Amino acid sequence: MLEIVIIGSGNVAQHLIKAFSASAAIKVVQVFARNKEAVSHLVEPKNITSDYKDLKEVPLYLIAVSDKSVAEVASKIPFTGKITAHTSGSVPITDLDAKNTRASFYPVQTFSKNRAVDFKQIPIGLEIEDESQFKILETLAHAISDQVFKIDSGQRKALHVAAVFVCNFVNHLYQLGDEICEENQLPFAVLQPLILETAAKITQLSPQQAQTGPAKRNDTNTIEAHLNFLKDKKKADLYQILTQSIIDHG
Amino acid sequence: MLEIVIIGSGNVAQHLIKAFSASAAIKVVQVFARNKEAVSHLVEPKNITSDYKDLKEVPLYLIAVSDKSVAEVASKIPFTGKITAHTSGSVPITDLDAKNTRASFYPVQTFSKNRAVDFKQIPIGLEIEDESQFKILETLAHAISDQVFKIDSGQRKALHVAAVFVCNFVNHLYQLGDEICEENQLPFAVLQPLILETAAKITQLSPQQAQTGPAKRNDTNTIEAHLNFLKDKKKADLYQILTQSIIDHG
Repeated sequence: MLEIVIIGSGNVAQHLIKAFSASAAIKVVQVFARNKEAVSHLVEPKNITSDYKDLKEVPLYLIAVSDKSVAEVASKIPFTGKITAHTSGSVPITDLDAKNTRASFYPVQTFSKNRAVDFKQIPIGLEIEDESQFKILETLAHAISDQVFKIDSGQRKALHVAAVFVCNFVNHLYQLGDEICEENQLPFAVLQPLILETAAKITQLSPQQAQTGPAKRNDTNTIEAHLNFLKDKKKADLYQILTQSIIDHG
Repeated sequence: MLEIVIIGSGNVAQHLIKAFSASAAIKVVQVFARNKEAVSHLVEPKNITSDYKDLKEVPLYLIAVSDKSVAEVASKIPFTGKITAHTSGSVPITDLDAKNTRASFYPVQTFSKNRAVDFKQIPIGLEIEDESQFKILETLAHAISDQVFKIDSGQRKALHVAAVFVCNFVNHLYQLGDEICEENQLPFAVLQPLILETAAKITQLSPQQAQTGPAKRNDTNTIEAHLNFLKDKKKADLYQILTQSIIDHG
């Protein structure tokens, strides 16, 4: 059984603690959390520390903290010759302290507080500077996911940018749709089947094939009517830009 | 049993023909299709016509044609005192010929050729000029869907605009994500669990609550790095505008 320490107490750390605690192949021997309270519902108090002096010695440290803290946390680990893997989409592994073998463990998913996720389906991108130790990282990932793959730091950055488009920006469009509904006394729930189907479609069709709507049809009457309808200039500008982008991709 | 004629042969018409043909409460006595071939796999040849002179007389005509053809089709129906309902999100019912009772039957969904949909879950917005005949329209909608609701033409237009944001524009962001993956030798499938979870989240959290990512965190380092990464100016511009919009909504 691979013994690990998880460092962090935010959304990603909490989801990982839950997933690894349920796994037979991994033992989470300790969690490092500046805010012990945040993980006290997941870990026994004796296995939580907020002091690097009390950090247990294990073969692998999984660093699930904010991007800006990754380098600092890695440098404070009082051991050498271990594996340190961070979970960030954008931090290159060379930002980690070179006293340990530098790696990344990137789950391509969005994590929210009150929302369970099924790790089995979450793709996990792996990178490690010393190929001979790749198997250890792979063991870690396979313990919770069936979708494990290798990427380098450049690909991971690209994947993170793509994830911002298909997740954060998409969710923002949901929010704008929600606002339009609210302004017109329509329940947002009316859009839910459409939202779910739009996402489900791309498991079967390419986004190019799946596209429908006024921009795809170059239906200038409807586009014009929609732009007139949108009194909020920011929404109208976005409508215009995204419509043009669809037409340009036509 | 309510007898109807469906006019049209595109995606929406075909999905409706399938759904109503499977329903016990509705009998599709005829389909009018300029292009008979397009529906010949769904309807017996003797029940397809492309000539208004051969149109059968029924209480209700469901007009599932392109927006720009709705008015013309309605005016060519050689009967009066019937119900004519179109399926468009944007055409006001007053565009229909007043010789029949004007109505709309708006399924809030995206329809693609090679993709089955479960009509039971599709919200259908109904509007009719003569309230005393609303029950007939309701019978039609309930025959295939559990999510039937009343809307006026203004609300329907709002809903259609919102649908463009959460479906067409969202799908376009999937396409841009797909392009970024391809440019970096990453399979688009890696983003699918993220896409599905992003959509599924909003059945439980509001889009506002569900938001994550660099813009939400106001993580200027990552935003800057992503903008530098995006060599395609159009993608970079979109990234900037959508990031700013998320920050403005923060």
